Amino acid sequence: MKHTIYGKELANMPYQPRPEGSFSPIWRYTENPVINRNPFEGASRVFNSAVIAYEGEFIGVFRADTTTGIPYLHLGRSKDGIHFSFDKEPIIFYDNKGKKVTLEYAYDPRLVELEGTYFIIFCTSNHGPTLGLGKTKDFKHFELIDNPFLPFNRNGVLFPRKINGQYAMFSRPSDSGHTMFGDIFLSYSKDLEYWGHHRHVMEKGYEWWCGTKIGAGPAPIECDLGWLVFFHGANLTCSGLVYCIGAAIVDRDDPSKVLHRCSNFLLAPEEPYEVAGFVPNVLFPVSTLTDAKTGRIAIYAGGADTITELLFTDIDTVIDYILKNER
Amino acid sequence: MKHTIYGKELANMPYQPRPEGSFSPIWRYTENPVINRNPFEGASRVFNSAVIAYEGEFIGVFRADTTTGIPYLHLGRSKDGIHFSFDKEPIIFYDNKGKKVTLEYAYDPRLVELEGTYFIIFCTSNHGPTLGLGKTKDFKHFELIDNPFLPFNRNGVLFPRKINGQYAMFSRPSDSGHTMFGDIFLSYSKDLEYWGHHRHVMEKGYEWWCGTKIGAGPAPIECDLGWLVFFHGANLTCSGLVYCIGAAIVDRDDPSKVLHRCSNFLLAPEEPYEVAGFVPNVLFPVSTLTDAKTGRIAIYAGGADTITELLFTDIDTVIDYILKNER
Repeated sequence: MKHTIYGKELANMPYQPRPEGSFSPIWRYTENPVINRNPFEGASRVFNSAVIAYEGEFIGVFRADTTTGIPYLHLGRSKDGIHFSFDKEPIIFYDNKGKKVTLEYAYDPRLVELEGTYFIIFCTSNHGPTLGLGKTKDFKHFELIDNPFLPFNRNGVLFPRKINGQYAMFSRPSDSGHTMFGDIFLSYSKDLEYWGHHRHVMEKGYEWWCGTKIGAGPAPIECDLGWLVFFHGANLTCSGLVYCIGAAIVDRDDPSKVLHRCSNFLLAPEEPYEVAGFVPNVLFPVSTLTDAKTGRIAIYAGGADTITELLFTDIDTVIDYILKNER
Repeated sequence: MKHTIYGKELANMPYQPRPEGSFSPIWRYTENPVINRNPFEGASRVFNSAVIAYEGEFIGVFRADTTTGIPYLHLGRSKDGIHFSFDKEPIIFYDNKGKKVTLEYAYDPRLVELEGTYFIIFCTSNHGPTLGLGKTKDFKHFELIDNPFLPFNRNGVLFPRKINGQYAMFSRPSDSGHTMFGDIFLSYSKDLEYWGHHRHVMEKGYEWWCGTKIGAGPAPIECDLGWLVFFHGANLTCSGLVYCIGAAIVDRDDPSKVLHRCSNFLLAPEEPYEVAGFVPNVLFPVSTLTDAKTGRIAIYAGGADTITELLFTDIDTVIDYILKNER
């Protein structure tokens, strides 16, 4: 390996090598989708969801659009990171006084381990869509911290370690609708309750594939060059938005500094389960598994707001591609 | 007086009693506008500006739309609160390391004294409109604190004292355009740098005059019933927005609790300098002067995004009107 992931080994993570003849920097699992329509009773579509290694196996927080159309978060477990069983009841959050919190809706969760605590960052409502921030140590009791930001915000991603002693969060200030604009910002906190020192990180692209808006995806991956950031970029066509996967490397100590930004998308919606579904043409990366020993990276992505799929790459392939095609 | 303003005496504040025959809870200064078009070289319109008592006279931070159309903040001084002289150069802010800060634009300033420091809260850009927060002790050196919130936000108003030991700020989450929606939120901070515990305070009205959006106006006035809050409410007509003045009383210790909200506007744009101008039909309250001894209240308001005018009321009249016409 030319490049190094700073992280743990994860020998049992799902992985397949790049198919013969492919020149794509990200490739698909041959048995996609890993979660298809109607995966459990009451859930019509499970997508845009996050998986993490936990106690030798895998656990995830999943966006399940119910048969009312309203999304909530459900826990799912897997031995191999591919086949999941789901809790039929949504995750229940409690406030710091132990009182049950009722969420109007909850969607697009990210899941990040930081100093032994697992944080769930998702979109919920405080009189308008904004970020929800929950935490658990055991995936049994879930505490909801106060909303970090005012409405309107989406695509919040906590960094997996503190930076200069502070918690750091990517987010994407939005509007109350489908948000036909959007850049990635960075905010800091000493206590996860009060946030400030907001910095602009990356704007939507002059490149057409991300020319309407961008938003952070999985938790950043620390590597030898800085933080590897996968993000989604959207392009408005005459028939709606098309969502692709992009990537950049930002500074280790000041993630508002973009060191390398790839001009190209790394993967676009092309497969039937990406180009057709509840929302056609959406490929939406939400979480990764990584193995520091081999440099392997697995990406969980939503397809067409309908299914969950697995994608693969490795640290050398993705960094080579970013550097070769950087702005 | 039936009701009491909790604050200082201000015997020399501008004031006129309610005209004979008027039944309006707020009335206009007979010599309005107090600042007309082109008040000083380079400034085409001075409006939506804030005045405060200072060293026995009056000082203000004024929105001056320049002949490029871009607004900046200028200092103005007055012996009587009616006739102002202006600094021709805009206010220059420095960061906490003494480095000059360049603002892309600055508008709609509020000016609040809190524990001997004067805070200026205004709209500026951090890759999109959001709140700027400056402070001064002498109106000579101005320090810019970090932007309290992510974009998009406007109409930030700091409370004139800490609440339960924390700074408190009203704001109005917005979008990147002319924002055809908007409610008032409350946020807290221990240090003015990191903000959290965001609470919804008041939604736009079912009443038509404020049916599109509302936003906080002058700094809240502490009185015997709680905090007296003047705000603006806007109503979208087929020819644009009409801005009126509304009022409510919120809880002293938890200003997210609305105790009394007036269903009626208190004053609507009716005079020629309010119904016609750069933006017709705007009456936009930004600051108040109060005299605790007499209960008198003077309101500085922008008219038609063009001129600055003075309005008057008193604590009994305004509270009686709110209580008589509350929801």
